[in-house]
Amino acid sequence: MRSILKAAIENGKKITMNGKVATYIPELAKGDRDALGVCIFDTDCNIILEGDFNTKFTIQSVSKVIILICALIDNGKDVVFSKVGKEPSADPFNSLVKLEMKETHKPSNPFINAGAIVCTSLVAGDNGIEQFSRILDMMKRLSNNSHIEVNYSVYDSEKLTGNTNRAMAYYLKGANIIQKDVEDVLDAYFKCCSVEVVVEDIARIASVIANNGVAPWSNERIIPEDVNRIVKALMMTCGLYDKSGEFCIEVGIPGKSGVGGCIMAVVPNRMGIAVVGPSLDVYGNSIGGGKVLEDLSRELHLSMF
Amino acid sequence: MRSILKAAIENGKKITMNGKVATYIPELAKGDRDALGVCIFDTDCNIILEGDFNTKFTIQSVSKVIILICALIDNGKDVVFSKVGKEPSADPFNSLVKLEMKETHKPSNPFINAGAIVCTSLVAGDNGIEQFSRILDMMKRLSNNSHIEVNYSVYDSEKLTGNTNRAMAYYLKGANIIQKDVEDVLDAYFKCCSVEVVVEDIARIASVIANNGVAPWSNERIIPEDVNRIVKALMMTCGLYDKSGEFCIEVGIPGKSGVGGCIMAVVPNRMGIAVVGPSLDVYGNSIGGGKVLEDLSRELHLSMF
Amino acid sequence: MRSILKAAIENGKKITMNGKVATYIPELAKGDRDALGVCIFDTDCNIILEGDFNTKFTIQSVSKVIILICALIDNGKDVVFSKVGKEPSADPFNSLVKLEMKETHKPSNPFINAGAIVCTSLVAGDNGIEQFSRILDMMKRLSNNSHIEVNYSVYDSEKLTGNTNRAMAYYLKGANIIQKDVEDVLDAYFKCCSVEVVVEDIARIASVIANNGVAPWSNERIIPEDVNRIVKALMMTCGLYDKSGEFCIEVGIPGKSGVGGCIMAVVPNRMGIAVVGPSLDVYGNSIGGGKVLEDLSRELHLSMF
Amino acid sequence: MRSILKAAIENGKKITMNGKVATYIPELAKGDRDALGVCIFDTDCNIILEGDFNTKFTIQSVSKVIILICALIDNGKDVVFSKVGKEPSADPFNSLVKLEMKETHKPSNPFINAGAIVCTSLVAGDNGIEQFSRILDMMKRLSNNSHIEVNYSVYDSEKLTGNTNRAMAYYLKGANIIQKDVEDVLDAYFKCCSVEVVVEDIARIASVIANNGVAPWSNERIIPEDVNRIVKALMMTCGLYDKSGEFCIEVGIPGKSGVGGCIMAVVPNRMGIAVVGPSLDVYGNSIGGGKVLEDLSRELHLSMF
Repeated sequence: MRSILKAAIENGKKITMNGKVATYIPELAKGDRDALGVCIFDTDCNIILEGDFNTKFTIQSVSKVIILICALIDNGKDVVFSKVGKEPSADPFNSLVKLEMKETHKPSNPFINAGAIVCTSLVAGDNGIEQFSRILDMMKRLSNNSHIEVNYSVYDSEKLTGNTNRAMAYYLKGANIIQKDVEDVLDAYFKCCSVEVVVEDIARIASVIANNGVAPWSNERIIPEDVNRIVKALMMTCGLYDKSGEFCIEVGIPGKSGVGGCIMAVVPNRMGIAVVGPSLDVYGNSIGGGKVLEDLSRELHLSMF
Repeated sequence: MRSILKAAIENGKKITMNGKVATYIPELAKGDRDALGVCIFDTDCNIILEGDFNTKFTIQSVSKVIILICALIDNGKDVVFSKVGKEPSADPFNSLVKLEMKETHKPSNPFINAGAIVCTSLVAGDNGIEQFSRILDMMKRLSNNSHIEVNYSVYDSEKLTGNTNRAMAYYLKGANIIQKDVEDVLDAYFKCCSVEVVVEDIARIASVIANNGVAPWSNERIIPEDVNRIVKALMMTCGLYDKSGEFCIEVGIPGKSGVGGCIMAVVPNRMGIAVVGPSLDVYGNSIGGGKVLEDLSRELHLSMF
Repeated sequence: MRSILKAAIENGKKITMNGKVATYIPELAKGDRDALGVCIFDTDCNIILEGDFNTKFTIQSVSKVIILICALIDNGKDVVFSKVGKEPSADPFNSLVKLEMKETHKPSNPFINAGAIVCTSLVAGDNGIEQFSRILDMMKRLSNNSHIEVNYSVYDSEKLTGNTNRAMAYYLKGANIIQKDVEDVLDAYFKCCSVEVVVEDIARIASVIANNGVAPWSNERIIPEDVNRIVKALMMTCGLYDKSGEFCIEVGIPGKSGVGGCIMAVVPNRMGIAVVGPSLDVYGNSIGGGKVLEDLSRELHLSMF
Repeated sequence: MRSILKAAIENGKKITMNGKVATYIPELAKGDRDALGVCIFDTDCNIILEGDFNTKFTIQSVSKVIILICALIDNGKDVVFSKVGKEPSADPFNSLVKLEMKETHKPSNPFINAGAIVCTSLVAGDNGIEQFSRILDMMKRLSNNSHIEVNYSVYDSEKLTGNTNRAMAYYLKGANIIQKDVEDVLDAYFKCCSVEVVVEDIARIASVIANNGVAPWSNERIIPEDVNRIVKALMMTCGLYDKSGEFCIEVGIPGKSGVGGCIMAVVPNRMGIAVVGPSLDVYGNSIGGGKVLEDLSRELHLSMF
């Protein structure tokens, strides 16, 4: 197992120079392009770490999974899916076109920015501070790490440059899909994206999902079973933006990527995996991380297909 | 002449019930659906008023003409048209799709909302208050009426419900087309839309444009000649949203409509015309006002074609 | 098992009146709206039939799976995916918009019409007759039924009314993605759609895919392993048009629907399932068939999530 | 006058190298990039020729004006505008997107390809041959030249490479906007585009339109007055593709361009102008020809604004 991971990391490092660190948020541009780390946390609580596993990174869009979990627990699936769709979108993550062309104005799914902003607005709490606090608490429980926190430099950077997200949020407010105060919702959303973690944190979150919503370390149920099923299914169809279909073919398990360079992957009933590598392909997915997961899928027979 | 106007108003009144008063801004919904008034102000300073010419209304999108005049005077056409196009758009006035699909992200023209917001951001002034003050001053000079003012109920209503405009403005900020503070620019824009006038004010503004930029009552040049030419040309191709082409065929002169129910029309070298009738067609143009202009165009041979 | 199927059929029959039989092809309009049948064929060659399992129907878009299999075998995945994408599309099955907006002009995936037409053009054969013969032969082997044939009334109807498909094909020819003669390719495609089958045929095809490409009845490998994996993954993300995401959540297995009323579903390593019910939802999927599969998924624990 | 024309041609020749001869139809690629010729034919039958006025070229999209004239005469405006819009489109001339997004599926206007194909289908005649014969006859009368004919090399080239037009036509057939046989309609359309002319032919056609539909050389009315008015108005708003708005500002008269390098321009009550220069800008308009018309507009005060 360890040698497979070592080889996968080595292979992945060969192509990190083909991608680019995210620059649209200035603070992200400081990421180390050539870093590449991986953590596997299985449902028997075995952990393996390899490569640059100490690399700190912000969770970015991987937080969309935890936001969705909170929104579903707090509202039920009927309410959530009355305001956001369940269908993959072949448009870039920050597209407005689809919002306007669909008669309902609903975002296509919870894993594009517009959909995640809607889900954030649905999380329980009287205001953005309470809503973020609820989501952060869920992240802590799912990762069994009470120390994770917002990276405020990244948060400031997100907030300053988040005008396309702001545009989407006001559009959704105008279409009556977001009821709460837009700036407040965005503030919570930007904080979610800016939470700083390491691969072990994300692998543990993935292991809970792999374990049908029950934390392997405590046997405590954190995610209700039907919520957990929905989350896995949506990760399978919509988890890697415009590359979700290819990931489904080449890796074949539910995944979710973020522009901080992380990809979280769930192997049902077996393990959670997290890779980090800030060098991204044109779709915004970690280029080295994707390669590592392809190798692991092949060597460890992870594909569900 | 007077009998032609009387007949046109009478004809127009027959179809006002086929349209609807604008409701997307609650304050506008109070408009009188059946009102219909007209004013002709010719380049020899003759004035004719007919129908409900005392109806007060907010200028709404007709202000886009004055905003463009200020933007062009303050920046020159090269700067203005580096940030907004000159081409008609076949999309609704508040569409975001075009912004995203065009590689430049430039709004199609200055007479759709996105384009007018960009033009507002270009008007001289250190902040939104100064910029609005400059535009209002221009409206006063062009109408020879120093008493026109903002209707603050409408302004509050616009501001409260203007989330689609806000979405566009933040999108344009994100695309670096608007440099100034978005809320400040929007505040000026919402005030421009909320200026309250009567048809004589608008007919006088139109008469200056018809008179090549020189006020008929003072022979003072207010609009530079080349700016005036650009404004007339854009009114011809883009003045009535998705009905610009039909207006060009059926009326055949430069025009600009607003959802307050006004249509301003310019008969080059002859006269300015303003009609008001708050009942709108599906495109947002005064339904009775359009009919009046069709009748006048035919009876007075106004068409340039 | 049999009682579960009986109950599922009964449940499904309650909602067939909420859908509509396809009418865009006149011949399809003759389908019996209230028919509902199911067949399960497992990898040990057990077969269960329930409901209106004798209903004959045309295979329609379910044929896209077999077309893709042939195209992949005959060309390899690199050639196929240079001409058609792997990503879900949130547009209707017959949309042209995506073709034009994407710079490559490639159809999003092999399971929308445009993508299936491209795959048809890639199947081995000197002309449309040979290409169709190759695909029909594959259908016969996969269903272990050498008697299946084209319903020529449906074929004539498809051909006569297939102008949107014709439009797409000529567009793809213009974009140099289809090299062969358009009418010839379309002729083969229309024939594929018009092949007449019963649920047992489709359940057998599904059982081969469930059995990793090997026919359960002969242990003969018909589909290469990597082709079989690609097919399952694409069925998961793109198999039910604009309802693929919901199907993935509610049923949770690879599926493919057709407007003839059939849904083919694959339970990896366990069984193939086919349902038929000509009453369709707005997306073009069998409304009763979808319900049957939801019930079976829940009762038989079929979901992969 | 002659010296103004000489100077304009000289100025125009300086920028022909900034454009490109159309290549999408192979036969057009043979055009001489640096040729530039002009003809003015006024309503008193004075004619001035300058530059490469003997250059032969195919009429291409300038024929859309004559097709529209025939369609309007043969059907009346109500029928024509029930199948094609009157509004400018900000999309490229060969776009399919608009057809699909608009609920009516009507092409935006008669001067984009889709619209012109619809108009061709409406021209009187039992088949494509008769329809083309009617249109060619109209071209001959309007140009007072009974010798103009199809260039069959260009026609063959158009036909062979016209798959995007074919796609649009089949789409419109599928949407029931075209009733006649698609290949037959396209054949007539391709022939219309391939008619070979010189600038004098086009300047004469323009002079009839400038003269309100009456041939200056015979005082015979060829175009009914209301048809003539519609044609001028549509040329103003939609005549130069995505550059119509700019042409309206910079030249200010009704115009129509074609990828053969011709621009036809109408100065109401004064003259018809035709320029030819095969070097095109990115929108498909003659780059040198546009410059010549800008210069002439300024020097001869042609703008209507």
